[in-house]
Amino acid sequence: MDTHLIDLDADLRDCIAQCTACHQACTELVSHCLDRGGEHAARAHINLLLACADICRTSADTMLRQVPQHAATCRACAELCTACADECARMGSDDPVMQRCAEICRACAESCEEMAG
Amino acid sequence: MDTHLIDLDADLRDCIAQCTACHQACTELVSHCLDRGGEHAARAHINLLLACADICRTSADTMLRQVPQHAATCRACAELCTACADECARMGSDDPVMQRCAEICRACAESCEEMAG
Amino acid sequence: MDTHLIDLDADLRDCIAQCTACHQACTELVSHCLDRGGEHAARAHINLLLACADICRTSADTMLRQVPQHAATCRACAELCTACADECARMGSDDPVMQRCAEICRACAESCEEMAG
Amino acid sequence: MDTHLIDLDADLRDCIAQCTACHQACTELVSHCLDRGGEHAARAHINLLLACADICRTSADTMLRQVPQHAATCRACAELCTACADECARMGSDDPVMQRCAEICRACAESCEEMAG
Repeated sequence: MDTHLIDLDADLRDCIAQCTACHQACTELVSHCLDRGGEHAARAHINLLLACADICRTSADTMLRQVPQHAATCRACAELCTACADECARMGSDDPVMQRCAEICRACAESCEEMAG
Repeated sequence: MDTHLIDLDADLRDCIAQCTACHQACTELVSHCLDRGGEHAARAHINLLLACADICRTSADTMLRQVPQHAATCRACAELCTACADECARMGSDDPVMQRCAEICRACAESCEEMAG
Repeated sequence: MDTHLIDLDADLRDCIAQCTACHQACTELVSHCLDRGGEHAARAHINLLLACADICRTSADTMLRQVPQHAATCRACAELCTACADECARMGSDDPVMQRCAEICRACAESCEEMAG
Repeated sequence: MDTHLIDLDADLRDCIAQCTACHQACTELVSHCLDRGGEHAARAHINLLLACADICRTSADTMLRQVPQHAATCRACAELCTACADECARMGSDDPVMQRCAEICRACAESCEEMAG
């Protein structure tokens, strides 16, 4: 379903899609990690996932609104996504779901870094 | 890119996708309507679009979290989406962008009504 | 600091304040419950707190925007807040932090029910 | 009503309060500006207010979650709040509501800059 109602350049559209995917992945990973328990359900890890999901959404919406300061929200998003990717990769060497989330976070971080310029 | 990290049934996945699309469409339509001006930029219309975008996101995330009370957020979402669809259809008879947004809102309202049971 | 920039009636202002307080309380309780562990860190409980925090914010903003459909978001908010209050009261009979959160959720649920009419 | 359920240092509590106030002020100012019309209802101005409201909320919640990367979201928040303060001050020299919003945005920007370190 095409939901693009206004013209945005392709790089911006791609970064919005990455942020939307990463918001959803981190939100889903909270459930997965709470089910696993242990360090996966530790306060610092769950709160990092939640904060990452949150800034991903804000970053996507700021780009959708074509606000010139979207570089600032993309920069913050890249930093949170990188932290999430590192942590998920480290904690999830035996867990394909964690690895998949790490990949999605890494791709979003790279896309946001480019948008931040 | 497959971003599904946890198992959710297909109806729930579909409704989450509709809510995500409607969040994005309403956010984009704000820009379109502000450019058009007049009744399109009236406070009541813009605020309805913003409130619809907001409950769409909340409804999507509540389903992603598999919270049993997602029926309540879907019900609220269906009500806001129906109001948006009606208003966009009425105000946008000459405007394909408004018509497209009305369709997306209508589809989301129907999907949320089904989820609300 | 007075941050009221537009006229809203006192009942609406009060309900917005309750929703804002409940959003904050549920967000903080996530950290408390993850530290406690066990059933407090179970997926269903944490996700209920997160969904409650989310609809509280959406409910507050929809009232701030004076969208006529705020009754719908208040109704959903009341349902989530009641579920949270019940669960926190049940799980936290020995825990003043849980009891305090239950009170805040209960007060928000009652205020939202009145606004929903 | 005391809604503080977990221990946070006073500077963090103050910055969270500033962000919450600024989120609310920018959300209310959208209604005021749409009523005024003209450049106040221009797409770029309304979208800046909306993006500022959004990052304020995300910044507040990231501090509430005590995520170490809150410096990144505070930095982005300071940048958006400064842009909002400048624009509201410039456009609202004759308008006490705009001036009040500019003050709230400026105070939030300063608080977030300090938190960002």
